[in-house]
Amino acid sequence: MNRITTDICIVGAGPVGLFAVFEAGLLKMRCHVVDALPAVGGQLSEIYPKKPIYDIPGFPEILAGDLIKNLEQQIAPFHPTFTLGERVEDLEKLEDGSFILNTVDGTEIACKVVVIAGGLGSFEPRKPAIENLEKYEGNGVTYMVRDPEHFRDKRVVLAGGGDSALDWAIYLSALCKEISLVHRGTSFRGAPESADKVVSLAEEGKLNLILKSNVTEVHGGDKLEKVTVMMDNATPVAIEADYFIPLFGLVPKLGPLENWGLELEKNAIVVNTEDYSTNIEGVYAIGDINTYPGKLKLILCGFHEAALMAHSAYNIINPGKKFVLKYTTVNGIQELA
Amino acid sequence: MNRITTDICIVGAGPVGLFAVFEAGLLKMRCHVVDALPAVGGQLSEIYPKKPIYDIPGFPEILAGDLIKNLEQQIAPFHPTFTLGERVEDLEKLEDGSFILNTVDGTEIACKVVVIAGGLGSFEPRKPAIENLEKYEGNGVTYMVRDPEHFRDKRVVLAGGGDSALDWAIYLSALCKEISLVHRGTSFRGAPESADKVVSLAEEGKLNLILKSNVTEVHGGDKLEKVTVMMDNATPVAIEADYFIPLFGLVPKLGPLENWGLELEKNAIVVNTEDYSTNIEGVYAIGDINTYPGKLKLILCGFHEAALMAHSAYNIINPGKKFVLKYTTVNGIQELA
Ligand SMILES: Cc1cc2nc3c(=O)[nH]c(=O)nc-3n(C[C@H](O)[C@H](O)[C@H](O)COP(=O)(O)OP(=O)(O)OC[C@H]3O[C@@H](n4cnc5c(N)ncnc54)[C@H](O)[C@@H]3O)c2cc1C
Ligand SMILES: Cc1cc2nc3c(=O)[nH]c(=O)nc-3n(C[C@H](O)[C@H](O)[C@H](O)COP(=O)(O)OP(=O)(O)OC[C@H]3O[C@@H](n4cnc5c(N)ncnc54)[C@H](O)[C@@H]3O)c2cc1C
Repeated sequence: MNRITTDICIVGAGPVGLFAVFEAGLLKMRCHVVDALPAVGGQLSEIYPKKPIYDIPGFPEILAGDLIKNLEQQIAPFHPTFTLGERVEDLEKLEDGSFILNTVDGTEIACKVVVIAGGLGSFEPRKPAIENLEKYEGNGVTYMVRDPEHFRDKRVVLAGGGDSALDWAIYLSALCKEISLVHRGTSFRGAPESADKVVSLAEEGKLNLILKSNVTEVHGGDKLEKVTVMMDNATPVAIEADYFIPLFGLVPKLGPLENWGLELEKNAIVVNTEDYSTNIEGVYAIGDINTYPGKLKLILCGFHEAALMAHSAYNIINPGKKFVLKYTTVNGIQELA
Repeated sequence: MNRITTDICIVGAGPVGLFAVFEAGLLKMRCHVVDALPAVGGQLSEIYPKKPIYDIPGFPEILAGDLIKNLEQQIAPFHPTFTLGERVEDLEKLEDGSFILNTVDGTEIACKVVVIAGGLGSFEPRKPAIENLEKYEGNGVTYMVRDPEHFRDKRVVLAGGGDSALDWAIYLSALCKEISLVHRGTSFRGAPESADKVVSLAEEGKLNLILKSNVTEVHGGDKLEKVTVMMDNATPVAIEADYFIPLFGLVPKLGPLENWGLELEKNAIVVNTEDYSTNIEGVYAIGDINTYPGKLKLILCGFHEAALMAHSAYNIINPGKKFVLKYTTVNGIQELA
């Protein structure tokens, strides 16, 4: 098992988590940063690395990926350490007020202060409300097509009207023994070309297209055997299926953080604007993941939150020591050895 | 008289006032910016234009002057207008909730929202505690050398030990009929080269250097006629003088803002962190000039304050219109015609 000891453990390596390393470093506090994704940068690296951002103060225009590179360079003097590709699962507060965090892969981080900079949380599939659905997860029900070969020569029912439902319907129609696409409307949210292709595949008999309908039941023994589709005329129809794949998009979920005893409001962590502390002493939440009156989910707001957090965390890590704000222009940057 | 009508009048063209133009512009609100100084940039242009700042997020290092240049470029699409070199004196709230601001030089600005980004306030001369000093202000006592020609062939007494006392002593020694520099110590805070120059001018008889002494009295009729200098050996000596110029540095003063009915605390304006609004509806305070629990006088904090202010001001300027946050990455920048 991998065990790390640090002053501050930052959960989330998005722009706000990264800048928190800088503000902590100015106050001589050491940071370890954990992210579920394999690279730093959060939404900027994952969703829009090549897009220009126009509202970072002082940059009339900067590519998201370049902002992340600059932040990495800015925090380098403070030598943060990283655990990437591992999701933090548990938070435990010890009697002395310090914390132990555990990742899914067994890394354990001991720290005095926890800073949650988890953004929108982790992205998880939106699940339809169907009884017993979870019972068949892993046994015929799945929300993602990881390896299409897995479905070769099987009977598959897809549900959804967006791009991933259309794209996989087209792709899998060439592989599966039998494939159905169930969609509650008559028009598709996905690309028109893909919708046209699906319609022509249906006309050629290569795909069973069921519009104005919904999958309402799943049945089987240990494994999925069939699904019930409620047709537009209110007639239930049973379709034999080895797999049912609802593709209704991804929704960000707070994920494990939900069970840490934090005060939540609409999928965000409630904080105090004095220092962006949560209801658990020693735990702060900054960036997109927090909420307070007036909150804007902007990168520049997270930067401010990181600064106030660091000054408050200083008092926990250095009890009784008085800190006087010093300007970087006057004092420069003192590297953390 | 110069009369300007705008959506938002921003008092103070420091980094925070400038960035407020940007955040307002994203929400299609027009800004007029007023500053008492002749150039934009606030403390950064006035005090440390050539120094590097290290804690602007995304810039491992940036010269203060360059940050201001970048901000000017960033706000250019929103075509802000400026009144520079004029101090705002009065704030008047009209019955319809809008405002009229007046500068010392008679410019009048009509606006719906006032944003005070006045930093440390205006810099004012530190005055020595001498009886009747104010009586002679404008009649022989002055705290600033605006036009040195004014002192040609006059008898002048300067007081102070910093750079401006030394520099003006050197400069005026070539113009005045008689010049004295009174300094309470024996060493100078100003540049050693300047101090050496002053000493050699004194040795050459071109300047009367009086060390370990203080000006303690001013005398005259309508105009200043002489000052009393208390020498180190406790002997008072009278010096005839047309002008007495105490040069003891500048101190920031809230200045006129003090009389606008704003809730103040320790020389700062108390704001609500939900939107950085003051106790007067429609008046906001952002940057160094405001205070709230946890406040840090940092540039990056002022940027955040500007963003939340703008979203709140939007509701005043567009009553009943609902605003949905749009990312610049998604929507770009729409120039304000
Ligand atoms: C298309 C798009 C355009 C945008 N444009 C702009 C713009 O122009 N200007 C602007 O200011 N903002 C913009 N934003 C918003 C901006 O991206 C966010 O405000 C910013 O990413 C928030 O940063 P963060 O560090 O708080 O969180 P994030 O960037 O979301 O990073 C959070 C990180 O935490 C990790 N994490 C979460 N939970 C865990 C866990 N349990 N264990 C380990 N890791 C975890 C995630 O994997 C993620 O990497 C845009 C967003 C999008 C999607
Ligand atoms: C030497 C030094 C180094 C610093 N280093 C850093 C650093 O490394 N990092 C950092 O974040 N901060 C630093 N700071 C602090 C930083 O400069 C301030 O936080 C910043 O300038 C605040 O910006 P502002 O726009 O609120 O106000 P200011 O920059 O003070 O601008 C306010 C403007 O308002 C004008 N004004 C005031 N009253 C009136 C009136 N009645 N009418 C018209 N105009 C008026 C003033 O003339 C002034 O131009 C430093 C400060 C100094 C002095």
